[in-house]
Amino acid sequence: MDVKEITPDKLNVKEFIAGQVESLKKTVGNGLAVNALSGGVDSSVVTMLGHQALGDRLRTYFICNGIMREGEPEYVGAVFEKLGVRVEMVHAEDVFFAALRGLTDPEEKREAITQTFYKNVFGRLVRESGAKYLLQGTNWTDVEETVAGVKRQHNILEQLGIDTEREFGYKVLEPVLQLRKTGIRMVGKAVGLPEEICNRPPFPGPALAARVIGEVTPERVAVVRKATAIVEAELRKSGAFQYLAVLHNDKVTGMRNGRREFGMQIEVRCWESKDAITATVTRLGFDKLEKLGERITSEVEGVVSVVYNVTAKPPSTIEAV
Amino acid sequence: MDVKEITPDKLNVKEFIAGQVESLKKTVGNGLAVNALSGGVDSSVVTMLGHQALGDRLRTYFICNGIMREGEPEYVGAVFEKLGVRVEMVHAEDVFFAALRGLTDPEEKREAITQTFYKNVFGRLVRESGAKYLLQGTNWTDVEETVAGVKRQHNILEQLGIDTEREFGYKVLEPVLQLRKTGIRMVGKAVGLPEEICNRPPFPGPALAARVIGEVTPERVAVVRKATAIVEAELRKSGAFQYLAVLHNDKVTGMRNGRREFGMQIEVRCWESKDAITATVTRLGFDKLEKLGERITSEVEGVVSVVYNVTAKPPSTIEAV
Repeated sequence: MDVKEITPDKLNVKEFIAGQVESLKKTVGNGLAVNALSGGVDSSVVTMLGHQALGDRLRTYFICNGIMREGEPEYVGAVFEKLGVRVEMVHAEDVFFAALRGLTDPEEKREAITQTFYKNVFGRLVRESGAKYLLQGTNWTDVEETVAGVKRQHNILEQLGIDTEREFGYKVLEPVLQLRKTGIRMVGKAVGLPEEICNRPPFPGPALAARVIGEVTPERVAVVRKATAIVEAELRKSGAFQYLAVLHNDKVTGMRNGRREFGMQIEVRCWESKDAITATVTRLGFDKLEKLGERITSEVEGVVSVVYNVTAKPPSTIEAV
Repeated sequence: MDVKEITPDKLNVKEFIAGQVESLKKTVGNGLAVNALSGGVDSSVVTMLGHQALGDRLRTYFICNGIMREGEPEYVGAVFEKLGVRVEMVHAEDVFFAALRGLTDPEEKREAITQTFYKNVFGRLVRESGAKYLLQGTNWTDVEETVAGVKRQHNILEQLGIDTEREFGYKVLEPVLQLRKTGIRMVGKAVGLPEEICNRPPFPGPALAARVIGEVTPERVAVVRKATAIVEAELRKSGAFQYLAVLHNDKVTGMRNGRREFGMQIEVRCWESKDAITATVTRLGFDKLEKLGERITSEVEGVVSVVYNVTAKPPSTIEAV
């Protein structure tokens, strides 16, 4: 493969869109393509590009995996309905939680989600649809981090030498592969995505499972989901690149009504970054930090402690798991 | 027992010292008393009161339990040598680590340290010395928190209805029982303890074991010891009530030399408080917070992430374990 990065200063948005739409038309021909929409800017842009190129010959699925943020399926469904793009909602929560049961190793958790997504859930939909093409929102940062061994993204199988046609039965197309976040956002605006989708902070592929240290159960996801909703509401206007809540597996001593309570701890991270390659800690005011501590410990049952990450990337990473 | 708190405004330091010295003389008579000096202000004050009352009839031991801070035995030894108080250094590191092996539950760890201290190490010294009296630095906050069930202090057995004479073979005397930190510091100055000892932030009985979530091994204690030294050096001039480093058991993803490193996380806590009953988070500047993050991740091997606690007590507690 001889694909190169297109930096934002070199990106001609109109030309890029025309080129990708043309390429998708040419590759897919009269065939059928499918894609999974997560609601992040990457998969949203891919959905719009695919829709422009293929119209009804693109089937877009939203996989409810049980590890999404609060109100996520409803929100994304509404946005695309407004844009005239049909999205099929697929409920597969139980399948994912069954695959995650008992797993605590981050790599094994990622792998379980990948395999469940590709083989059991989305793979089955693709096979049943008869589609031979899968559109994905892989971007340049994913490629780089995977090559560097920092993280195993679940959407860049081909780069890793995995033959998706043989292994999964379809060919993966990655229209935004050459762009990083900034470029993808520029394209997003041009294809008509609302500001809110374009400027959403990045969200990891394994969703809230990447925000749970230790076993990923429906109960533990519910805790981090609630904390995430609070963090996002409080930090939406911070102007930060990304902000997130992590549920620790360690329990810490707390106090409730004058008595000891061995409870959960939530870690808040908030990042300044251009491209996620390096990042610095957002210097939030202590009014805000203490408010986060107060809200999370009083609104999320069982949480007695909140901490704020103060380590830059590197040596930290954006996500904890 | 009909003992009441003496608040700092009601504390007549001179009278208090005279009263306690008199009481110790009367109780111990011509007998022998022993005490364990930890280097905290409580046990230091008790050592000085006991020394004034009993002179050579008090034997003071410093138990090296392997879970002390960096340079602690040497520092405390030097302070008391200067004050003309003989302190016997007892090396029992292996005994403590053997007792802690495999334990992860905070209560079990505390219990192992208590039992090792009282029965195996200090208890044996007391029995061999023939002393019938043990002086301890239990204070009013310990009593209250234990009664409230927030924490099991390892030095207030009698308050819990444990008969130390029958169970451990000696009677426990607690000369600073009626005071909280502020009062104890006032007494400390009056009995000639250096400023540095009087104003030391409180340090928990189970020492660095209280700062390790999960198993307490020599290796893990070495990690939190190094982090503690950095935190204390950086925050000594903060004017805060207490500051500490906690080693988490959870591992988080980090990056080192461009490659993924699954590493350790240190939590820093820094408190504003008068009496440890309630506490608020110290609003450290981000220059300081980021410096803590940088120093700890670069100077303590294997640590890739540092977080800062932003939850008040309650619902948090001062210590994590």
